[in-house]
Amino acid sequence: MSELSAKVIAGDPRSIGRLITLVENDAPEAVEAMKQIHRYTGQAQIIGVTGVMGSGKSSLIFELALVFRAEGKKVGIIAIDPTSPFSGGALLGDRIRMMDLSTDSGVFIRSMGTRGMMGGLTSALYDVVEILDAAGMNVIIIETVGVGQDEVDIVKIADTTLVVLIPGLGDSVQTIKAGLMEIADIFVVNKADKPGVEQTVAELESMLDLVGHTEYRTPIVATSVKEKKGIQLLTSKIAEHQEYLKKSKTFDTRRRQRYEAELIEIIRKRLMDFIFDEKKLKKTVDCCIDQISKKELDPYTAADEILGKILK
Amino acid sequence: MSELSAKVIAGDPRSIGRLITLVENDAPEAVEAMKQIHRYTGQAQIIGVTGVMGSGKSSLIFELALVFRAEGKKVGIIAIDPTSPFSGGALLGDRIRMMDLSTDSGVFIRSMGTRGMMGGLTSALYDVVEILDAAGMNVIIIETVGVGQDEVDIVKIADTTLVVLIPGLGDSVQTIKAGLMEIADIFVVNKADKPGVEQTVAELESMLDLVGHTEYRTPIVATSVKEKKGIQLLTSKIAEHQEYLKKSKTFDTRRRQRYEAELIEIIRKRLMDFIFDEKKLKKTVDCCIDQISKKELDPYTAADEILGKILK
Repeated sequence: MSELSAKVIAGDPRSIGRLITLVENDAPEAVEAMKQIHRYTGQAQIIGVTGVMGSGKSSLIFELALVFRAEGKKVGIIAIDPTSPFSGGALLGDRIRMMDLSTDSGVFIRSMGTRGMMGGLTSALYDVVEILDAAGMNVIIIETVGVGQDEVDIVKIADTTLVVLIPGLGDSVQTIKAGLMEIADIFVVNKADKPGVEQTVAELESMLDLVGHTEYRTPIVATSVKEKKGIQLLTSKIAEHQEYLKKSKTFDTRRRQRYEAELIEIIRKRLMDFIFDEKKLKKTVDCCIDQISKKELDPYTAADEILGKILK
Repeated sequence: MSELSAKVIAGDPRSIGRLITLVENDAPEAVEAMKQIHRYTGQAQIIGVTGVMGSGKSSLIFELALVFRAEGKKVGIIAIDPTSPFSGGALLGDRIRMMDLSTDSGVFIRSMGTRGMMGGLTSALYDVVEILDAAGMNVIIIETVGVGQDEVDIVKIADTTLVVLIPGLGDSVQTIKAGLMEIADIFVVNKADKPGVEQTVAELESMLDLVGHTEYRTPIVATSVKEKKGIQLLTSKIAEHQEYLKKSKTFDTRRRQRYEAELIEIIRKRLMDFIFDEKKLKKTVDCCIDQISKKELDPYTAADEILGKILK
């Protein structure tokens, strides 16, 4: 095992940060370390938090982290949203509170930008989750925003996904895409100190009635970071969901799905690298060019033949 | 042969347009047609025209097209630049003159947007060139702007590449990237009615002296669309370059390079489609998930193994 891998497993924050940077930069040495640390993963509870901008996800995660810390758990936080306080887009008050957390050695915070990663974010995200897991984080919280592909991907990673709404956000419930409805393990109506919380909860309840439910009914938790309300209830609902997962064997299914998604992601990335390595491809191609030039063969048929040679 | 392919080969403008649209939309029926028409290609002379915005490329191409038409040649024009008159970004005068051309049945004009094609432009461009070639265009002119990857790609397609400059454009010659220097078969100093043309020509000459030259020295032609100067000289320099290409066997080399680039492009595209077809990949992946879950195998090693199975 490399020194870096050993230090990551020992939970050294600087080494964790360094390996994450290597992963983000697609450095070759990252792969070796990722191979080495895999056997030390699988212990962490992974919580995904998604919701629209301004729904107070970051503050909520801060409060959740405090509760987990009080329980003696180590907490890793990955913020995907580039406008999140973790990555610098927040109110000063939030930032100062986050600094509180970041001086706590039991908390590791990392922001991941979506810019310039062109399809590589998901791949790197899987790696970062594995790193924090191997480094002994008991809880890993992934924060993201919106209802795009990123959110769907997060569900493939998280054991428990929280969808955060706020009261009075127009027709808040109507704006929930069918996709978000499906991915929510727990609905959080945050900023419950604001008017309209009962209505939003009621709308969600009737929506859940409509969908019907299996043995697990998605709970709805009203929270207020400002008034410190509902946070303990939320953590207990998260714990209940974890229990349900394990009891119903859904936990194993989800973990399998995560590994499947992760593996497909790695394969995709490798094949892309292969494709974009022109030199390798050129060798294979050379033989057909004469025939194409002489019109004995067309490029599309030639491509079929070459792919037949490359792919089994 | 399909009816569409037959009509394209017969030069029917509507069918040409339809097949191009199919190609741009990545329609499956396009591939069959592309296979059928290949044997009818290889006759057209392909001219690439590149240069900065505002260098008057479109007007110049218009004048070139008129000369080729006067020689009885059919002309295809492909405009890549989204701000070009062909795609709607031009002065009214230019547009009206282009309409002149577009009512001439010996001219086929098509603009191709770079937006939303995400890496697919080059692939479609190869196809469009093949289509116009098979449709009996004697000359195909490809217009593009700038010094990006698109320009480099065009060189792979064109037999003769014109780099268009204008006098007095600051340190115009200094702004020529080394890349443009290499791709120019002919330098055109357009808008030669403006002051500073002699200096620009002199600068180019000394730059060419510096680089040194082989048997072919890149000619510099000063043109003015306004004063109708230099257009005939330019067409004769294009003809000379064609003769040089054929005499020196460079012609065959270039054609081979084009087919090679085209073939690699098609293969890339197919492999990408393959990668993004999750279902296919999932089947192959299933077997490893158990081992990954049990930590007997890590995802990266599993990816290596699976790629070993997919790739020969």
